[in-house]
Amino acid sequence: MTLKKAEDYIASLKSLGLEANVMGKKTQDLPDHPLVTPSVRAVATTFDCAHNAETRNLFRVQSSISKEEINRFTHLHQSAEDLIKKVLMQRCCGNITACCFQRCVGLDAANAVFSVTYECDQKHGTNYHQRFREYWARIQTDDLVVDGAMTDPKGNRGKRPKDQTDPDLFLRVVDKKRNGVVVRGAKMHQTGMINSHEMIVMPTINLAPGEEAWAISFAIPTNTKGVKYIYGRQISDTRKMEPTCRLDVGNSAFGGQEVMTVFEDVFVPEERIFLNGEVDHSGKLVERFAAYHRQSYGGCKVGVGDVLIGATALMARMNGVESASHIRDKIVEMIHLNETMFACGIACSVMGHPTKAGNYEVDMLLANVCKLNVTRFPFELARLATDIAGGLLGTMPSANDMDDPVAGPYIKKYLATVQGVDVVDRMKVLRLIENIVAGPGAVAYLIESMHGAGPPMAQRIMIGRQGAIEDKIKRVKNLLDLS
Amino acid sequence: MTLKKAEDYIASLKSLGLEANVMGKKTQDLPDHPLVTPSVRAVATTFDCAHNAETRNLFRVQSSISKEEINRFTHLHQSAEDLIKKVLMQRCCGNITACCFQRCVGLDAANAVFSVTYECDQKHGTNYHQRFREYWARIQTDDLVVDGAMTDPKGNRGKRPKDQTDPDLFLRVVDKKRNGVVVRGAKMHQTGMINSHEMIVMPTINLAPGEEAWAISFAIPTNTKGVKYIYGRQISDTRKMEPTCRLDVGNSAFGGQEVMTVFEDVFVPEERIFLNGEVDHSGKLVERFAAYHRQSYGGCKVGVGDVLIGATALMARMNGVESASHIRDKIVEMIHLNETMFACGIACSVMGHPTKAGNYEVDMLLANVCKLNVTRFPFELARLATDIAGGLLGTMPSANDMDDPVAGPYIKKYLATVQGVDVVDRMKVLRLIENIVAGPGAVAYLIESMHGAGPPMAQRIMIGRQGAIEDKIKRVKNLLDLS
Amino acid sequence: MTLKKAEDYIASLKSLGLEANVMGKKTQDLPDHPLVTPSVRAVATTFDCAHNAETRNLFRVQSSISKEEINRFTHLHQSAEDLIKKVLMQRCCGNITACCFQRCVGLDAANAVFSVTYECDQKHGTNYHQRFREYWARIQTDDLVVDGAMTDPKGNRGKRPKDQTDPDLFLRVVDKKRNGVVVRGAKMHQTGMINSHEMIVMPTINLAPGEEAWAISFAIPTNTKGVKYIYGRQISDTRKMEPTCRLDVGNSAFGGQEVMTVFEDVFVPEERIFLNGEVDHSGKLVERFAAYHRQSYGGCKVGVGDVLIGATALMARMNGVESASHIRDKIVEMIHLNETMFACGIACSVMGHPTKAGNYEVDMLLANVCKLNVTRFPFELARLATDIAGGLLGTMPSANDMDDPVAGPYIKKYLATVQGVDVVDRMKVLRLIENIVAGPGAVAYLIESMHGAGPPMAQRIMIGRQGAIEDKIKRVKNLLDLS
Amino acid sequence: MTLKKAEDYIASLKSLGLEANVMGKKTQDLPDHPLVTPSVRAVATTFDCAHNAETRNLFRVQSSISKEEINRFTHLHQSAEDLIKKVLMQRCCGNITACCFQRCVGLDAANAVFSVTYECDQKHGTNYHQRFREYWARIQTDDLVVDGAMTDPKGNRGKRPKDQTDPDLFLRVVDKKRNGVVVRGAKMHQTGMINSHEMIVMPTINLAPGEEAWAISFAIPTNTKGVKYIYGRQISDTRKMEPTCRLDVGNSAFGGQEVMTVFEDVFVPEERIFLNGEVDHSGKLVERFAAYHRQSYGGCKVGVGDVLIGATALMARMNGVESASHIRDKIVEMIHLNETMFACGIACSVMGHPTKAGNYEVDMLLANVCKLNVTRFPFELARLATDIAGGLLGTMPSANDMDDPVAGPYIKKYLATVQGVDVVDRMKVLRLIENIVAGPGAVAYLIESMHGAGPPMAQRIMIGRQGAIEDKIKRVKNLLDLS
Repeated sequence: MTLKKAEDYIASLKSLGLEANVMGKKTQDLPDHPLVTPSVRAVATTFDCAHNAETRNLFRVQSSISKEEINRFTHLHQSAEDLIKKVLMQRCCGNITACCFQRCVGLDAANAVFSVTYECDQKHGTNYHQRFREYWARIQTDDLVVDGAMTDPKGNRGKRPKDQTDPDLFLRVVDKKRNGVVVRGAKMHQTGMINSHEMIVMPTINLAPGEEAWAISFAIPTNTKGVKYIYGRQISDTRKMEPTCRLDVGNSAFGGQEVMTVFEDVFVPEERIFLNGEVDHSGKLVERFAAYHRQSYGGCKVGVGDVLIGATALMARMNGVESASHIRDKIVEMIHLNETMFACGIACSVMGHPTKAGNYEVDMLLANVCKLNVTRFPFELARLATDIAGGLLGTMPSANDMDDPVAGPYIKKYLATVQGVDVVDRMKVLRLIENIVAGPGAVAYLIESMHGAGPPMAQRIMIGRQGAIEDKIKRVKNLLDLS
Repeated sequence: MTLKKAEDYIASLKSLGLEANVMGKKTQDLPDHPLVTPSVRAVATTFDCAHNAETRNLFRVQSSISKEEINRFTHLHQSAEDLIKKVLMQRCCGNITACCFQRCVGLDAANAVFSVTYECDQKHGTNYHQRFREYWARIQTDDLVVDGAMTDPKGNRGKRPKDQTDPDLFLRVVDKKRNGVVVRGAKMHQTGMINSHEMIVMPTINLAPGEEAWAISFAIPTNTKGVKYIYGRQISDTRKMEPTCRLDVGNSAFGGQEVMTVFEDVFVPEERIFLNGEVDHSGKLVERFAAYHRQSYGGCKVGVGDVLIGATALMARMNGVESASHIRDKIVEMIHLNETMFACGIACSVMGHPTKAGNYEVDMLLANVCKLNVTRFPFELARLATDIAGGLLGTMPSANDMDDPVAGPYIKKYLATVQGVDVVDRMKVLRLIENIVAGPGAVAYLIESMHGAGPPMAQRIMIGRQGAIEDKIKRVKNLLDLS
Repeated sequence: MTLKKAEDYIASLKSLGLEANVMGKKTQDLPDHPLVTPSVRAVATTFDCAHNAETRNLFRVQSSISKEEINRFTHLHQSAEDLIKKVLMQRCCGNITACCFQRCVGLDAANAVFSVTYECDQKHGTNYHQRFREYWARIQTDDLVVDGAMTDPKGNRGKRPKDQTDPDLFLRVVDKKRNGVVVRGAKMHQTGMINSHEMIVMPTINLAPGEEAWAISFAIPTNTKGVKYIYGRQISDTRKMEPTCRLDVGNSAFGGQEVMTVFEDVFVPEERIFLNGEVDHSGKLVERFAAYHRQSYGGCKVGVGDVLIGATALMARMNGVESASHIRDKIVEMIHLNETMFACGIACSVMGHPTKAGNYEVDMLLANVCKLNVTRFPFELARLATDIAGGLLGTMPSANDMDDPVAGPYIKKYLATVQGVDVVDRMKVLRLIENIVAGPGAVAYLIESMHGAGPPMAQRIMIGRQGAIEDKIKRVKNLLDLS
Repeated sequence: MTLKKAEDYIASLKSLGLEANVMGKKTQDLPDHPLVTPSVRAVATTFDCAHNAETRNLFRVQSSISKEEINRFTHLHQSAEDLIKKVLMQRCCGNITACCFQRCVGLDAANAVFSVTYECDQKHGTNYHQRFREYWARIQTDDLVVDGAMTDPKGNRGKRPKDQTDPDLFLRVVDKKRNGVVVRGAKMHQTGMINSHEMIVMPTINLAPGEEAWAISFAIPTNTKGVKYIYGRQISDTRKMEPTCRLDVGNSAFGGQEVMTVFEDVFVPEERIFLNGEVDHSGKLVERFAAYHRQSYGGCKVGVGDVLIGATALMARMNGVESASHIRDKIVEMIHLNETMFACGIACSVMGHPTKAGNYEVDMLLANVCKLNVTRFPFELARLATDIAGGLLGTMPSANDMDDPVAGPYIKKYLATVQGVDVVDRMKVLRLIENIVAGPGAVAYLIESMHGAGPPMAQRIMIGRQGAIEDKIKRVKNLLDLS
């Protein structure tokens, strides 16, 4: 049993020897690539925190399987308190990294697969649960990073998988071998994939009889033969590759990362398959994973929000306007919205319940409410930060100009504000705000807040289903003595 | 020890012999007055629920003082779970009554006074805590309804109490007797006062040295000599007094009630005084009471919201449009907003903490966030209900026209919708919606949502204070390596 | 040719001898009924303004038919400037009455019927346009008030007229006579109907072949045989009938009025029929009337909004908080939203265009945008007014208590605020705010803002149709050189 | 007299020989620099449109000075119709370029300086108006691009110019010569400056006696000695410099551009000075320029919004979801918000009035209302576009990967959607959306929408001043018969 340190994690990641297509080039040594390194560091934070004095208690927990102490990022939740601590842990990581730290997806996938395999076995007499339990015991013991892969390309959104021009547009089983299956397809938007040791693959929609080939869930190592990665561009990504000063990136220490993952006839051995044709359990898997992941956003995005609020308040102070009533009012609004998301993350945790398999599940309704707020409030936080930060957010010269004998002194002279404020510090804070509202950080803070764990319409459908409308109508009928 | 039943409560209330000025007339036998009766029934629900099979477990709890089983509406919270159950209990009452059931204010006051008196005694060597504990033990044992009186008239809002033209505009001690004090002033907007046995009076603002006369907190029976009540008008209130059909009230079973309460040189005996001149503890009392009460709104208003959503969905069904996508979308939005408020009520509960005195206090930041959402979302719920309900909401004929031989049949003919829907049922649902969005129920659902437990600016000030802005700035400095 | 004065109008109205069922009673002498009188006075304002020095230029215009000077409320718009002046005139009336002054509906109906009859004649060789022109010439000359009746009861909203259980749920021709037709049905929510001399009836939806019986438009005097009126209840309506002080109504001078209008086999003579079976012109009539009326709301509701803003600002001043930054900020927000609606009213006017018949039509897209904003912003204005007005908005004692020897002095003592502010004046302002946000005025300011001229979904459909999406897509294709 | 063509403009621009510091390098031949070229093309569009058959009538107008035909971008507005046409012209340019076309600032400055100089001369006996008239006559005749420079660096926002640690933080006169003055300082966020022939410099705030040195307005050629330019970074700017495929920029044809402009002891000859120490006219200049420029945003941002809506609708179509009700609803909402801004731009134009100098000024209140909406709605449009565009917006591979023999085919296979949709076309549309909501275009569409022509608080102050609050209060007093 090991609780990996950051350096252990990075070493183990490098040993996987992953390759990806990055901006047109086949690339190796990914963890050392300037586009990738910040994202590795963000994941590494989840290991660091299990060792730091201030955070270790929150990040460590006793495994329900091995009874050993493990990193909470690999935990099967055993109580509402565990669910709450998950949210607190995520907010903490967001506070430190100001970006997506990528390790929740696998955690959320594992907790969903754990309970769904149990119920599938109960109904179909399959043996998935025990398999998964053994698989996951090793993840806990080795303290591995696991990605969860759900989003299929989907092709024509108006058509079912089998009605697509190309049936591979939803990942599917293309061949059955004696001891496993062969799968083909792709998963999109895979956050943190190339920083992971393993991935859990799941279907992306509720499937119906006749769609058995697409009802497949399994886990494989990220360096499995036939798996290909194509790196996703981010806003202002190449600033990370600019030779000199790192100032312009805004958050040079940490960052997120996404890839398109292609499965070119990949063989999956029997013992790593957790669903295979049981279409009636596909929807459950989608809903539960989504619910856990929608809860997650009540932690991680709130953590990033804290940094954005801090940066905005600091900018106001640097500009000499922190006590202006309209500035204070906007900061209060930012806090209010951020804490409302947090409240939803906490509430869906505490109102959680045990599954038949014994782990804990969030309240479905409130988890969806949480995420739906996350598709709105970060955008308003970003707008308010843009308001307070000022026009320089979009017009500030390059950090490279600071070294220029002519431009440098002018920038220092004319970007000066309150006495005692260092101009470069001020530029750093502006670039951090830019990073989150209109830079690489905005991929996670805005675009992923909209689409991660499903777009708003997916939450709305769930809220409609979970909202107990018939109960509410019944109350009205009681109150008014209606028939 | 008794757990009163509804009828016991009503009998005990009648025995108090309260009088009030009601629409220009000195009025006795208040509980039987048609304007008042629905509000008595709403309070009585809090007693009923402690006996009904479905709800009794939630509404009963072991007293921390007597160890006997008491009504949760008189409980000193002992855990986060208690705080959560308080919110669930309030949502339940809102579900049943669709209005303000008036019994939370005293509960919130008691929990605030309990901890503040403890801390005041610690600092000033006073004896308030033991006094209050004894006082409250009797409230629990006798299962009494207690109102909390905080809102002073305030006169010129730009001036301190002692700078007002009339110093009585904030309730104050005007004379000190050997065994008590004499107070003069008024408390505004007293929800449920004339349905209560007792009241706890508190200051309305944080006071400073020199303002000792206003730093007074105490409890007295509602029928104390010198206390006068002037009944507050509500929207469409006199429909409750109309002779024939009750249909037009919308919610004829239940209702809220507010009075202006005047203290004309009222004597308060020593043993019922819980603060008297310790200005440094006045602010705490205000903040804590307010925080508990802001939490309350995450339960009660959500409960009313459930009824409004149910009525709106039922109206859509009655009109034959329930499956229209824009209708479903609006219902989902109503549920989403309602559950967001609930999430905040739950979250500020679970994140609560014990006070020095041993009872449990809500998380101050999240309780204020909860209430700030309550100053917004019910208005949007009301707007959406207005959208779906249709124009008839503002133009429907009087129920009295139903008995008219000419008008009655026309109404039945032309207000018919989906086959099988009874026109009178449809009218009832419309009137219920009107009651909540633009009738007597709107006093609680909209105006009180705005101003109860303080207007939005009060919450914003607290959010600014509790929002840990300096911590957030520090995180930014760490991330960016700023000095 | 006469330009009636207010007293002429009232006299002429009385001479019609209209009857209505009012709260269960058959009632005559309607203009003198306390529920009705304020609404008559509101309509009378439209006559007064044509004589007052300050407003007469705006309210008078040269008739395009007779070339005589007429009241602009009967004008067929001849230019964009006419359309703008219409909006300004409506804002002016809103400013004076703080309520719905009821005379726009007929104006909007006339302008729609004028152009649609022309086009119908062109296509079908009918003679409607000349008929209407002659009819309307008399309206202008006699300066009459005309109501427009469009909203059918609609029954099951999911079904067409002929598929309803009762085909009368949409008004229809039930018999054809040699010199006219007989109609049966009802029109709902008829604002100002019993204060009108005439009414123009129109279909409520776009009709298809096979629905000819419902494609009927005509004008009749309001006192036509077979027409029945059932009075609509308004929020807090009976305060208008309370014996003593008028303070509690909030706006005792003016008010709105709605009735349900039943057509019990009413004969319509040939010369008053403007559409009869030409289903292909029914949709045009609906859309054009709706567009004109959606423009109207950019004037009248803005005028009421001005009064609400003024009352709110005055209340802040009376409370001594007018210079608080958050108060000023909320007043600014109210002005901003109000002026945004006004801007839409003006813009759809100036972007208007001539019809084939020669009168001027508003820009369809912008008129719908205007109204869609009106379904939102007044609700936010009301919310902000509620915030600033304070809790007293929902809890203030009855005006009758002012005369009570005990209660009266207490109210005066404890409702006092800034020195020099009269308490009764303060109560009047509070009641005016209550009137608009949660009293009889809210029927027009909120419920009618939502549903008048069609609910929001009706505007959304038109915006989708008029929004030139294909043009926008084409621009993208050009920019990106797409095929 | 010439009406320049695009190529004439570009040639004349090159002949200026401007230099700038661009990302750390002193750079010449700016119009040919890949970062700059798209912005030159955007300005060139304003010339093209004066020659294209479809647009020439809108873009050409008779000069009030020379009576010759000129480009409307140099026009002194003579009527409300001119103001409206200005907005239409701007929307048209936004439609073509999908970005900031940079030529409005000088137009807005000229119209403000024209009327303020007139009034200053009237009061102070100065000769500025005639000077400016002569200066501007040449601009019209030569069809030049003029920038307007208002925004000073401002240093500590809590201090006046003379109280700053460095008085140069507001541009000021540092020396007076016999035939001119010497100025020092900087102007920030200068949109289009290095694509301009001339600039008009104005003070940034209302100045008071004792601040004469800062009350300076003048015009100089952009290649004047002592003027230095430092290029501003934009989001994802260097994609414009990437060697291969231009797909990733999103809008490779057009773009915006901003510089920081430093005035290092620049000599300004007497005949180019339009204000020099008359502090009482500085505020007017600021307000009027701002009002014209706030009107502008009701045209240009709406034009970009059209493109964003078109791209979003096209993406929905390409994904096969265009007929989903929630998609249509969001597109309608985008149109609604976009047209609301347009309505404000049109309304402040038509409600404009002539100045004493004879040109036309927008309605101050409505122009500020227009801009305040622009600080909100584009953010919501961007959020809705993000919703519909999908997660690929933030995770799509680089265009360079298309050429890769492994990655290219995978991208084509898995990004396929509706049959017949070209994958590269789909990628182009996604990149265009990215460009506007989170790419270089977002600098203009979001950040500039917030801060251009002043941040929201500047508009709020003006709305508070222009909102006629006292009139509104007076109306309430009249209605209620208050003293």
